[in-house]
Amino acid sequence: MKIEIVTIGDELLLGYTIDTNAAHLARVLAAEGVEISRRTTCGDTADSIATAVREALDRAGAVITTGGLGPTSDDLTKPSIAALFGREMLLDEVHLAWMQERWRTRFQRPMPESNRQQAMLPAGARKLVNNHGSAPGIWLEDERGRWVAMLPGVPREMRGMLADTLLPLIRERLGGGGLVVRSRTLRTTGVGESHIADLIATIDGGVGDVELAYLPNADGTDLRLTVRGALPGNADARLAAAAERVRSVVGTAVYGEEAADLAAVVLEMCRKRKLKIAVAESCTGGLLGARLTAIPGSSDVVRGGIISYDNGIKTSLLGVPKAMLDEHGAVSEPVARAMATGARSATDANVALAITGVAGPDGGSESKPVGTVWIALDMNGEVEARRYNMVGDRAEIRHRSAQAAMEMLRRRLLA
Amino acid sequence: MKIEIVTIGDELLLGYTIDTNAAHLARVLAAEGVEISRRTTCGDTADSIATAVREALDRAGAVITTGGLGPTSDDLTKPSIAALFGREMLLDEVHLAWMQERWRTRFQRPMPESNRQQAMLPAGARKLVNNHGSAPGIWLEDERGRWVAMLPGVPREMRGMLADTLLPLIRERLGGGGLVVRSRTLRTTGVGESHIADLIATIDGGVGDVELAYLPNADGTDLRLTVRGALPGNADARLAAAAERVRSVVGTAVYGEEAADLAAVVLEMCRKRKLKIAVAESCTGGLLGARLTAIPGSSDVVRGGIISYDNGIKTSLLGVPKAMLDEHGAVSEPVARAMATGARSATDANVALAITGVAGPDGGSESKPVGTVWIALDMNGEVEARRYNMVGDRAEIRHRSAQAAMEMLRRRLLA
Repeated sequence: MKIEIVTIGDELLLGYTIDTNAAHLARVLAAEGVEISRRTTCGDTADSIATAVREALDRAGAVITTGGLGPTSDDLTKPSIAALFGREMLLDEVHLAWMQERWRTRFQRPMPESNRQQAMLPAGARKLVNNHGSAPGIWLEDERGRWVAMLPGVPREMRGMLADTLLPLIRERLGGGGLVVRSRTLRTTGVGESHIADLIATIDGGVGDVELAYLPNADGTDLRLTVRGALPGNADARLAAAAERVRSVVGTAVYGEEAADLAAVVLEMCRKRKLKIAVAESCTGGLLGARLTAIPGSSDVVRGGIISYDNGIKTSLLGVPKAMLDEHGAVSEPVARAMATGARSATDANVALAITGVAGPDGGSESKPVGTVWIALDMNGEVEARRYNMVGDRAEIRHRSAQAAMEMLRRRLLA
Repeated sequence: MKIEIVTIGDELLLGYTIDTNAAHLARVLAAEGVEISRRTTCGDTADSIATAVREALDRAGAVITTGGLGPTSDDLTKPSIAALFGREMLLDEVHLAWMQERWRTRFQRPMPESNRQQAMLPAGARKLVNNHGSAPGIWLEDERGRWVAMLPGVPREMRGMLADTLLPLIRERLGGGGLVVRSRTLRTTGVGESHIADLIATIDGGVGDVELAYLPNADGTDLRLTVRGALPGNADARLAAAAERVRSVVGTAVYGEEAADLAAVVLEMCRKRKLKIAVAESCTGGLLGARLTAIPGSSDVVRGGIISYDNGIKTSLLGVPKAMLDEHGAVSEPVARAMATGARSATDANVALAITGVAGPDGGSESKPVGTVWIALDMNGEVEARRYNMVGDRAEIRHRSAQAAMEMLRRRLLA
């Protein structure tokens, strides 16, 4: 099945809003066996909506739109497409009553008159339930079986409606025999893209008939395996076999799949071992602590830590000797080690991670250029430290530093 | 001038990559007086590229494409569009030599043979200089003056080429007489959208003939003023007058314009007053410190702080009495105040900000539901504190808390 996507809105066309809906729709639908053959973005005028949808319908016979279902006068999706199908707009009394009730109970006031428009539906339309907002989605179909599904533009509402209501309808039409595009992503960190490629080159037969993409980013290198044009069961089996092959050579460099967060992985490993974590942060200024505590339930593992941005704090709160700072500089192995040990003892934790580096853009020198970062780990008194040369701008260097610190701990816990 | 945008790539169509190029192009061009009348995304096949570009050219007469200029076999933008214009592909010896030199000096190895394709250009094409990569952009024009500009898909390269090379060409064609869409954004925080609307309603004549959009987000509420269809000087003057009117009633609630970061604003205010900042963070776990130190040059203002995620650390490092924690709980006014004072004295700072709250999703109670946050500010011993009820999920509650703490400091410094 081919579907075209039409995203509607002046905000999108003027570039004030980045279109994340189209990517989400495409990804979810491709995994079900739908081919998204084209995507169009048009403005809020009735004419441009009707033209874009008509052309898409002529090419693909099936169209999903997002946006333009709100209560304001520039929300013209429904009437424009109704006109295209030669349908009049009728008031849906049931939906109107539901909306009025919703305003009464939820917002404790009468529904504004302008929202009435959201209960106007094209004749013969099928409503798509919206569990996250007041505008219903619309499914409109002509006598030849060509259809348009209209979803709201608010991402949360759109995603909910797609999963709850539209996807089951589309699956019904697909009848289970469609060829799908599915992918699986293995996340690695701390290993270079070319090193991973060398390891994968040693696999007899490579990853089989599966596409492999290297996606380097500030978290590390993600390995995306993709199968196109296969039956769902076959696609999943080939992906599983390919993932197994990659894991057999890349091994523990894979810390998780899909959207896995290294912070959550490390927290879970510590939780199992009943370890308490502390941090000592200089150039990251709290970012490592923020990453760890972003994970719900982190409070049973994270004790806290010290942001020792100023050298005085490295001495007063972490016990780094002033003479050491003077002799080696703040960005040095002994200071990183002393920071880790200082944080562990100040917080009574089992494990402490320390980061000190030059995040830039200024402050670099010949021997310690921007991107030079020392990271140390003190686990129950056993300390290790490593120097990194991080690439990227200030934000990337800081992000990579926090990631590298967590990876150092993960490696130690695996050992 | 009307231009259509065609973004090319299976990655975009499958939803693996979110199309940020289209939004950037649209925004920059609208400010110059170009109307983006439609945006299309198509896959990597020669046929779909040619079809999408031909249709766009028929409608608008001017098209900008992104993507498909790389060295791999699925980079078909140039040959597909050359065929559309009836031009053959020729080797550009000058560009080939430049690329070979670039590989020698930059990567210390010979250029891979596959990159040769990047030096193949349609006959009669004009090269658009790429200062950030090896693929040149292409400008192709027919005898009727219809044109296609092909830009790379890598955002950094695309943005650079647009600014350096394409925009001057487009400006030349516009001749300065075009009507533009321009906007200006005033950033506020700590004041509700409806309160701002009430204040603006008191302005005689409102904001004039300028559109005003309220854009609530985790930073606060942004007020976007937009003028469409005006000459550049007129648009700028109307925006300036409207911004002046908004500021006259909203006053100091505006902390900056466009992409201003409250952290940078607060740091600059402290720098002028030679104040040193410290933080004490419980539920934000380092996020406030990370926000402040994300700003280059923050080291002359930020001393550091204590992440007191665990109550034991509130006592041991911040000196919050255990009896106080037992009596009032960690999320309480006295504890927030004691944390701020403790952080200030532990770090020898002038100013300390403390945050303690329930970020969720668990841990809420009837009297302190998820989103309850106490923030305290100790400035040279004078302490203030305030309770907030933050909305949103864990990430939003934490982000809003850090933002509210910085705003509390900004307010104090303004007073």
